Amino acid sequence: MPSPALRLSGSELEEARRELFDFLTIPSVSANSAHRDDTRRAGAWVVERLRRAGLEASLLETGGHPVALGEWRGAGPEAPTLLVYGHYDVQPPEPLELWTSPPFEPEVRDGRIYARGAADDKGQLFLHLKVLELLLARHGTLPVNVIVLAEGEEEIGSPNLLPFVRKYRERLAADAVLISDSAMFAPGVPSLLFSLRGLAYLELRARGARSDLHSGAYGGAVPNPATVLARILASLHDEEGRIAIEGFYDEVVEWDAATRAGIAGLPFDEEEFREGLGAPGLAGEAGYSTLERLWIRPTCEVNGLLAGYTGEGAKTVLPAEAMAKVSFRLVPDQDPARVADLLRRHVSRVAPPEVSVEVVELHGGHPWRAEPSGPFFEAAQRALERAFGRAPVLTGEGGSIPIVSDFERELGTPAVLLGFALPGANMHAPDEWFPEEHLELGLQTLAGFYGELAR
Amino acid sequence: MPSPALRLSGSELEEARRELFDFLTIPSVSANSAHRDDTRRAGAWVVERLRRAGLEASLLETGGHPVALGEWRGAGPEAPTLLVYGHYDVQPPEPLELWTSPPFEPEVRDGRIYARGAADDKGQLFLHLKVLELLLARHGTLPVNVIVLAEGEEEIGSPNLLPFVRKYRERLAADAVLISDSAMFAPGVPSLLFSLRGLAYLELRARGARSDLHSGAYGGAVPNPATVLARILASLHDEEGRIAIEGFYDEVVEWDAATRAGIAGLPFDEEEFREGLGAPGLAGEAGYSTLERLWIRPTCEVNGLLAGYTGEGAKTVLPAEAMAKVSFRLVPDQDPARVADLLRRHVSRVAPPEVSVEVVELHGGHPWRAEPSGPFFEAAQRALERAFGRAPVLTGEGGSIPIVSDFERELGTPAVLLGFALPGANMHAPDEWFPEEHLELGLQTLAGFYGELAR
Repeated sequence: MPSPALRLSGSELEEARRELFDFLTIPSVSANSAHRDDTRRAGAWVVERLRRAGLEASLLETGGHPVALGEWRGAGPEAPTLLVYGHYDVQPPEPLELWTSPPFEPEVRDGRIYARGAADDKGQLFLHLKVLELLLARHGTLPVNVIVLAEGEEEIGSPNLLPFVRKYRERLAADAVLISDSAMFAPGVPSLLFSLRGLAYLELRARGARSDLHSGAYGGAVPNPATVLARILASLHDEEGRIAIEGFYDEVVEWDAATRAGIAGLPFDEEEFREGLGAPGLAGEAGYSTLERLWIRPTCEVNGLLAGYTGEGAKTVLPAEAMAKVSFRLVPDQDPARVADLLRRHVSRVAPPEVSVEVVELHGGHPWRAEPSGPFFEAAQRALERAFGRAPVLTGEGGSIPIVSDFERELGTPAVLLGFALPGANMHAPDEWFPEEHLELGLQTLAGFYGELAR
Repeated sequence: MPSPALRLSGSELEEARRELFDFLTIPSVSANSAHRDDTRRAGAWVVERLRRAGLEASLLETGGHPVALGEWRGAGPEAPTLLVYGHYDVQPPEPLELWTSPPFEPEVRDGRIYARGAADDKGQLFLHLKVLELLLARHGTLPVNVIVLAEGEEEIGSPNLLPFVRKYRERLAADAVLISDSAMFAPGVPSLLFSLRGLAYLELRARGARSDLHSGAYGGAVPNPATVLARILASLHDEEGRIAIEGFYDEVVEWDAATRAGIAGLPFDEEEFREGLGAPGLAGEAGYSTLERLWIRPTCEVNGLLAGYTGEGAKTVLPAEAMAKVSFRLVPDQDPARVADLLRRHVSRVAPPEVSVEVVELHGGHPWRAEPSGPFFEAAQRALERAFGRAPVLTGEGGSIPIVSDFERELGTPAVLLGFALPGANMHAPDEWFPEEHLELGLQTLAGFYGELAR
């Protein structure tokens, strides 16, 4: 097959956008059991697209939401095999009242496609489905065998994917994993990832009395689990923004000077970044720059808090329970299970005996570090440069795609992370968006990638 | 009129219970604007009962929920005047799922009347309405003039009552205020109060970025308002359980040795108290007993916490906002406005500049200390002793009835606090209850009180 850029007619692009919008209307919120059927429906939608493209595809059951798996083996047993990974599930859309347009009614405004999942990851997964359809329709062949694996549980920590990968280990054997589930460094600045942070996500549940009490009648003598929880959370950082859990940094590998120099050389305006977020200021671990804090340093964040009365007005209640969701982003070589264990030990050391505190692991994933070389990585570099007119930069990514390190650990397959979203895309927040223009540029890049592999 | 004990027939008691149940079915939740009409309906219900008893009564408008006011001036201008105060509004019933029977469908189980407001304060207010009806029906007269003032905003801090009292100052002139809105020390141990704690109730709102962010993509470099809020809350107490706000104890008056000795002499089993609450342990300010911590020492409690994602599963969100409801119970001579000011100063000292923290006053009330003597106080002592067969003990009360000190400050009228609920009544919690037997004992006590005044 030829390598020149893919040209799309206006009507082809229009059709692609219609198809994507169709995908985005399905509320495949994997975390919410009320959306179980919707989530499955999104998986079936992927299978249907894969079949239309010419792959053998089916929806394979797991212990949770199913995996959409497609295969094209037409390049023959001697040719390399590429595994394309994506996910068809999305984050919960709440708080709904902060969306400008409803999360599952995609809408274009100012060159942006707004919808839950537009960037993370339906919009980017769709690029892969569509490029295979276009290339196979035009050329009838591909330079490599292709497996597409789209899961429906990425946003809840992929609890069933590792067992799935183990079960289908031979069928999934590949020379590289290609993933588009991240963002470019900046508009017009394409990127390839050198790292992902891992994740340990836990819930803390503090309990005092059997039931809520009158805070006047009982306050002062009966332990308050909300106060205890606040004190525990406050103990997780020191005054320098470092995580104050004993042993937390023991497995953290300091990055090499070249990587840190590369980060320092990126065009990044801290004040612009702050202003874009509308935050009064930035803060983090002392001794590291903002990009380093985001990419190569671990974190501890409170993701949710709930206790007592939270409605309108005042209720003088001494709560019986208090809950916090707490997550850690991890860097090589931290291990999520070990970090969960360290937190558990920390809590049992700092929690007072008059309140019981339970620590529940919700999910975790390992950090990942790329090998920035090899034919697939280099094909991606050249394809990005051709499509965007500029060589890609190497960046880290603060978020986690736990399956990336799992693929490496289980299948021995290195990953190439090629993202098309833009910074500020509101992944996991209201008004998530994907640049409309990247529908075409993304398809061109991916077509170019296959073209490079054909050379 | 004669002073002997009031005797009630079985059918009279049955009728009284039916009437009380009717009152308890009205969901007069003053804090919730969805219940505005219900709250007003409860006020109208009180007016109707007052008229039936023979008082001139009407529903008087305020800036919020109306006041039910009844007057009986038949004792003549030379006779003393008693002001009976109560409230017809109730706490929000949430969390509903923890109620054994629905909060507004009163039900008797094991000798207890279960309903929101059964103890706080509809059940106790009803005793006053009913005793006036019974006494006026039997004797046609009372030994004192009686004013009944029932408000509908006690549970939201009585924001309109002080202006009301000022407006109707002359009409409300009285020699004593009688209030039944508290609990006895123990079953079979009647009590009169020597103190009430005051209240300063505030809301803290911390804000970081403009909207919720992905905690992977932004965590580590963007301030987390939930973490900041936890650190502020943790800074409110020291390791000894003392409140660590500068100047907080400046106005706290140490109680006299006699009061502390009286408290120490009360029959109180700390372990039984703890077990009754189902708490793993008790805790509080070092150097004070449990009863002292509840009655004569100030407190700081977290009443509510909300931030980020609190639903099922895990959402990796870095919240834009975090909210805490925080209240202080105050003791003489603390002032709620000054305490709010001290908190505000404390927060601006400890909050980091990268997060904005707003402190909003929701409501407040002054602490109160009784003058345990005089004809009304002594009539209450004797009436309790006759009805319950045991002299009342003097106790403090950890909760607040801000209007008590307001009556003293505005009208110069001392208050007598005569409560009929029992400890563990779940005021402000699910399964609130009032002892069924106290319907009769309460009516007998109040009838005896008027009888004592007649002597």
